[in-house]
Amino acid sequence: MPVPHTWLGIAADDPFGPGTLPYGVFSTGDGRPPRVGVAAGAWVLDLAAAAYAQDAPFAEAVDAPVLDPLMAQGPETWRQVRESLTAWLTDPAFETALRPHLVERASVRMHLPFTVGDYVDFYSSQHHAANLGRILRPGQPSLPANWKHLPLGYHGRSGTVVVSGTGIARPMGQRKPPSAEDPEFGPSARLDIEAEVGFVVGVPAPGGGVPVSGFAEHVFGVFLVNDWSARDLQAWENMPLGPFLGKSFATSVSPWVVPLDALQEARVAPPERDPAPVEYLRDVPGDPWGLDLQLEVRINGEPVARPPFAQMYWTPAQQLAHLTVNGASLRTGDMYASGTVSGPEKEQRGSLIELSWNGEEPVELADGSTRAFLEDGDTVTIAATARGPGVSVIGLGEVTGRVLPAQG
Amino acid sequence: MPVPHTWLGIAADDPFGPGTLPYGVFSTGDGRPPRVGVAAGAWVLDLAAAAYAQDAPFAEAVDAPVLDPLMAQGPETWRQVRESLTAWLTDPAFETALRPHLVERASVRMHLPFTVGDYVDFYSSQHHAANLGRILRPGQPSLPANWKHLPLGYHGRSGTVVVSGTGIARPMGQRKPPSAEDPEFGPSARLDIEAEVGFVVGVPAPGGGVPVSGFAEHVFGVFLVNDWSARDLQAWENMPLGPFLGKSFATSVSPWVVPLDALQEARVAPPERDPAPVEYLRDVPGDPWGLDLQLEVRINGEPVARPPFAQMYWTPAQQLAHLTVNGASLRTGDMYASGTVSGPEKEQRGSLIELSWNGEEPVELADGSTRAFLEDGDTVTIAATARGPGVSVIGLGEVTGRVLPAQG
Repeated sequence: MPVPHTWLGIAADDPFGPGTLPYGVFSTGDGRPPRVGVAAGAWVLDLAAAAYAQDAPFAEAVDAPVLDPLMAQGPETWRQVRESLTAWLTDPAFETALRPHLVERASVRMHLPFTVGDYVDFYSSQHHAANLGRILRPGQPSLPANWKHLPLGYHGRSGTVVVSGTGIARPMGQRKPPSAEDPEFGPSARLDIEAEVGFVVGVPAPGGGVPVSGFAEHVFGVFLVNDWSARDLQAWENMPLGPFLGKSFATSVSPWVVPLDALQEARVAPPERDPAPVEYLRDVPGDPWGLDLQLEVRINGEPVARPPFAQMYWTPAQQLAHLTVNGASLRTGDMYASGTVSGPEKEQRGSLIELSWNGEEPVELADGSTRAFLEDGDTVTIAATARGPGVSVIGLGEVTGRVLPAQG
Repeated sequence: MPVPHTWLGIAADDPFGPGTLPYGVFSTGDGRPPRVGVAAGAWVLDLAAAAYAQDAPFAEAVDAPVLDPLMAQGPETWRQVRESLTAWLTDPAFETALRPHLVERASVRMHLPFTVGDYVDFYSSQHHAANLGRILRPGQPSLPANWKHLPLGYHGRSGTVVVSGTGIARPMGQRKPPSAEDPEFGPSARLDIEAEVGFVVGVPAPGGGVPVSGFAEHVFGVFLVNDWSARDLQAWENMPLGPFLGKSFATSVSPWVVPLDALQEARVAPPERDPAPVEYLRDVPGDPWGLDLQLEVRINGEPVARPPFAQMYWTPAQQLAHLTVNGASLRTGDMYASGTVSGPEKEQRGSLIELSWNGEEPVELADGSTRAFLEDGDTVTIAATARGPGVSVIGLGEVTGRVLPAQG
């Protein structure tokens, strides 16, 4: 699809060009409450103000301090809003009316874009799961026996999902070094990141049972997730109930939610699945939900990994089908994350435990320092773009967070 | 404490006597929205209506379709409300003014009492954990190595917490019998219950770090939980991320939340802990939060177990301290459950997997039928009472649910 020209003069390769049009919630520091915005190049459009000015039928649904009401509307409204936005930004006839509702993106503060319902974290990169198996269970099969039969996942803490830019205090907790008799208590010494892609539910499913084919009827959009992980806390608590305090202190999300419609050209076939999964997990022929997103992980501004999302074994459509196959309901704002995105190459690994191979091969940074795990003061940024077949670049923006000292 | 006499003529041994005064949310089927009520014997007091009539300072906080605003107020208001309720119901001078705000409890419909934030399920009965270890990991130590060092837990699905009385459809899912090569898909064949006690947070803790001594400053009240569990789904999915679809289809809660102040006489010292836990988990001397609650599990009305809560290894105060020690925030409405309550005796086990020893010793019911696990149509009820040193009986009411056929 060729990039439409906007009267805003957005460059053709701007990741927030007119092919992206992501939604977020912003405030302007003038006492006005947070409100829904759409990013366009270096600008944010105040969506409700613009919609009221244009007498758009969806004005009320976007007049809120969160995306929840818009997300709950469903695909027809989502398309309508997007078509209106495209028309408004590309037809110079709208410029005079809309200019007053644009603010510079660099000047706004971004907020959590939606009310998080439940948060499920999956584990769907075969490369990541196999790397962790090799690191944590040497001598055993690298993948758990169930891994290729279902998208493994667990519930995370929704109350500690924070928007990009929020400082992340190093968590306190119990850990037991293999050599120690008893557990110790103190700040995590192995603080890590996990580069993931997140999905948020718009349309509820009160009875669960969303088939793979129902993904785009329920999911509103895509964003980036940093699933901060305290590896030492996690190792000690993990058996037999899975991750808990090693994860629950914070999960950061990017502020801009990219609608599925913006990612149509990034849809790719997922990898071959062997063995074929049971029926409720089968891909719909001709309707693939692999996504060709290129992630980049930076520590203090320096790229340390470029994880490829296209190689994820389980797609977000399969994850949603699995999540609801037992009858579990979906609410507007329920979110789920892909699991750490890792590719087959070393520089494609989405976590430090993989990049440094459990600390044995610390990552070298340009300033000469090394990182086995994160240090206080480190800033971690995960960014991503999707490339379509044409010249258009679709960006997911970025999620960033700085490690603060433990508050003991 | 002697039971005060009420002008309602409540029997001294009524579990919802004037020493209990639990809070819930009810509606009356006349089109009026759900509202906060207080149970007193066979009656429900419409709390906001009564409070406005008495010009009580807390009237606005209880004028809501959920307990959230009252819960957020904190212990001083909670005590004030309770003192007013006691005065209103025991002083005959209030009878004329309050009679119009009483409705028969048998006539009301109960709703979920609060907006569930995050839901954490613990695993804090040593007898339960050891039974499961013996059943699931024969030949290995019955308790995981970490079990006596921290209250193990995991996050459950808050969106599928339902109020007592809600039908529970048998979940569909994958399970792999040991003899099978590949997993099968179908209705769970091993549907179970877990009899638990729940706690709900009233006062938020934005930075986490609630000490054991802070329990009563943050927790509003206590209720009963049936953590429905599909053992076959759980067994197949559990490694390495813990419970997910085997639990997430439904969790039932009792409709009446009993305030901590009602349970003062039920506070008992928890069992001796050996080894002593690390400092943040130590009991506060003279401020014990073991609770002498006697649970009863009934299948189709017939008692099958009487689990003793007083024997729980970790107290709810320790659970809250653990949950927040990593900095995880608390919100009003965050709830947590104790984990299955099981005592040392066979008839004290709070789950069927224990009662039937993984199906090997089915439970015999009075009608001659047996249960290894639940059948469609079974109704499970969990009830509980706390006995104080005097004649007063404090009830937690009950949580009930009927198993419906799978919806495939």
